[in-house]
Amino acid sequence: MAPRMPEMGMLAPVAGVRIGTTNAGIKQRKRDDMTVMLLDPRATVAGVFTQSAFRAAPVELASARLEGARALVINSGNANAATGSVGREDARRVCDAVAAQAMDVDETAVLPFSTGVIGVRLPVEAMREGVVAAVQKLREDAWTDAARAIMTTDTVPKGISRVVQIGGAPVQITGIAKGSGMIKPNMATMLAFMAVDAAVPQSLLQGMLSRVADVSFNRVTVDGDTSTNDSFVLIASGAGPVQLGTQDLEALEALEVAITDVAQELAKWIARDGEGATKFVTVKVSGGKSSADCLAVAFTIAESPLIKTAIFAGDPNWGRFCMAIGRADAQVDPNTVSLHLGDVCIARNGMMAEGYVEADAARVMAEDELTVHVDLGQGDAEEWVWTCDFSYDYVKINAEYRS
Amino acid sequence: MAPRMPEMGMLAPVAGVRIGTTNAGIKQRKRDDMTVMLLDPRATVAGVFTQSAFRAAPVELASARLEGARALVINSGNANAATGSVGREDARRVCDAVAAQAMDVDETAVLPFSTGVIGVRLPVEAMREGVVAAVQKLREDAWTDAARAIMTTDTVPKGISRVVQIGGAPVQITGIAKGSGMIKPNMATMLAFMAVDAAVPQSLLQGMLSRVADVSFNRVTVDGDTSTNDSFVLIASGAGPVQLGTQDLEALEALEVAITDVAQELAKWIARDGEGATKFVTVKVSGGKSSADCLAVAFTIAESPLIKTAIFAGDPNWGRFCMAIGRADAQVDPNTVSLHLGDVCIARNGMMAEGYVEADAARVMAEDELTVHVDLGQGDAEEWVWTCDFSYDYVKINAEYRS
Repeated sequence: MAPRMPEMGMLAPVAGVRIGTTNAGIKQRKRDDMTVMLLDPRATVAGVFTQSAFRAAPVELASARLEGARALVINSGNANAATGSVGREDARRVCDAVAAQAMDVDETAVLPFSTGVIGVRLPVEAMREGVVAAVQKLREDAWTDAARAIMTTDTVPKGISRVVQIGGAPVQITGIAKGSGMIKPNMATMLAFMAVDAAVPQSLLQGMLSRVADVSFNRVTVDGDTSTNDSFVLIASGAGPVQLGTQDLEALEALEVAITDVAQELAKWIARDGEGATKFVTVKVSGGKSSADCLAVAFTIAESPLIKTAIFAGDPNWGRFCMAIGRADAQVDPNTVSLHLGDVCIARNGMMAEGYVEADAARVMAEDELTVHVDLGQGDAEEWVWTCDFSYDYVKINAEYRS
Repeated sequence: MAPRMPEMGMLAPVAGVRIGTTNAGIKQRKRDDMTVMLLDPRATVAGVFTQSAFRAAPVELASARLEGARALVINSGNANAATGSVGREDARRVCDAVAAQAMDVDETAVLPFSTGVIGVRLPVEAMREGVVAAVQKLREDAWTDAARAIMTTDTVPKGISRVVQIGGAPVQITGIAKGSGMIKPNMATMLAFMAVDAAVPQSLLQGMLSRVADVSFNRVTVDGDTSTNDSFVLIASGAGPVQLGTQDLEALEALEVAITDVAQELAKWIARDGEGATKFVTVKVSGGKSSADCLAVAFTIAESPLIKTAIFAGDPNWGRFCMAIGRADAQVDPNTVSLHLGDVCIARNGMMAEGYVEADAARVMAEDELTVHVDLGQGDAEEWVWTCDFSYDYVKINAEYRS
């Protein structure tokens, strides 16, 4: 059983962002697999991309075209990764088709995004036809369609809308994400797109996005396997009532808080929908000498196969936590380490806590959501990571799904 | 089905090393779980130990007592890890029992080794009685018993004997190892003990051991989860005909080659007996700018859950290899990367190879032993790692075995 999943309500339009989706038959015929987003000429766009050395062709193009971006073209079913120079040319030809359909949009202002099978060429002609169909359907109220069209084997679509008041005027935020779903050949790729109708200068927007990514999507790990296509894009359409500049520090900060909130909700949703997940887990590490130390311990715990299988089994296995904390690339003194599962103290000063009763911890672990809290007892730094457990279904999904 | 496993033949005695084993009832009653090794007064001992910050009490004692070591006391069933200062005191008391039984052996010359459940105190009294029983049985021809007595849930005992000629005289080498077996609470701990009857000064022996460990046990990964108790000990008993000193460079080198060979055989054996393993995999990475780059790529591949499940499924999944190579902490240019599975070229210059037929790769992957060869195309460095696949049984062993 998967952890409790939020339900995606209706997603609100963002003025200045028009969306069209279609089925281009890239991988399957049952639902849309192509999305075109056309942006207001005033829009600014920021992006963060996978750190993989094997960056996919669309990632290379999109990251180079952020400034002056006017349109996004997104497909699921094919990642256009490990496709070399022909892959870049294929991506360019799909972008060209968008420019040809959309008035006043230069082809270098079109950003491509792909997710799906790796090492296979895009079906460019079918996608160019898809672009024509998608552009004909462009409208502001289609975020829900887009949330579905970017899915691969996600079990649910993921999207959130919020309105925040910035300096007395409303800003509409809508964001969608896909992730941790598997598709032939089973790469966990993450894509997220978010738009606000405020105006924000590109350089400020990019800084904001980097900070937001660092405390949202960059805190999710399902199996530690980074994809070749991960992208997170933030659009400030400039079509709403709020226009922000470098001097509006307070308003920019308020907007960043709101965007962070949406991004964190989407990020947690991705962990909940992790492959084969039965539990959603927050790993909190406090008392570190540095944030880096806390993150190192948190990620080591979140990615340890022995801990993930213990969590699947509901086994409060102190020994495995010792192991992971001990092997993390961080300054650790076992004598000051404590561990809580939920509100139950398992260990203190590096040893099983006095009076600890396993049944208490087992009760916490039986829930479909739990918090693992390690206190390193060395300093004031504190960080966290979101993850899920490791079940038979993880092996099943990844072993039985042949490429 | 596990990969083909070597069969342990009779293990030859090493002059100057007497061994006694017994059942001390630490975890189970069916087979011996305690081993005492008493060494010739001329013996020198070298050791390498886990890098975990959570080093178990016996690891702390043993590593501090290498010089002048005269006896080893080894138990399975309990790791004496995460037991704080009482754990160190417990280990000392077991060592004291050995010193009390063995003439002329100071208690600080006894090295303790433990593997098994973490966070639980040793049954010291039972173990002290076990020491008496084991010491009564001391004899040179008991390596086979020791190979069995150090097992936890290894499916087979592991040991190798060799005789090598060094400068015209024979040197007897015998080594045993346990590893990647699981025990409550399921920590993969590795122990290896090797002895030669040559004399080698301790400082030379320690350097030799570090180099040997680096190309043998340090090349094995089952799940990336480093234990709190890993130890590899090399004894030069000095009781045989070959006596080496600092000036005997050629002989020392010949001995190191022979020891390396035995250690590598034992290391591969551990990977073959990895939890739930169905395939033994050698990951070779060539063409790197540095050894560190090659090792980073090799370990990322060997520890990627997505690749390990693909290997379990016999799926020659190029996309997953791209992913792992791309996320490794190494200098990688996708345009020069090639991948072979066995003798089949899957990819060249970062793309699926021309003329590649999946059936050929699937044939390679159907074997229970295979080599993954990545050429980074950037330099002359070359390294390798041994591992196994990731099966339903891995989850089963680690999820169903409750602590």
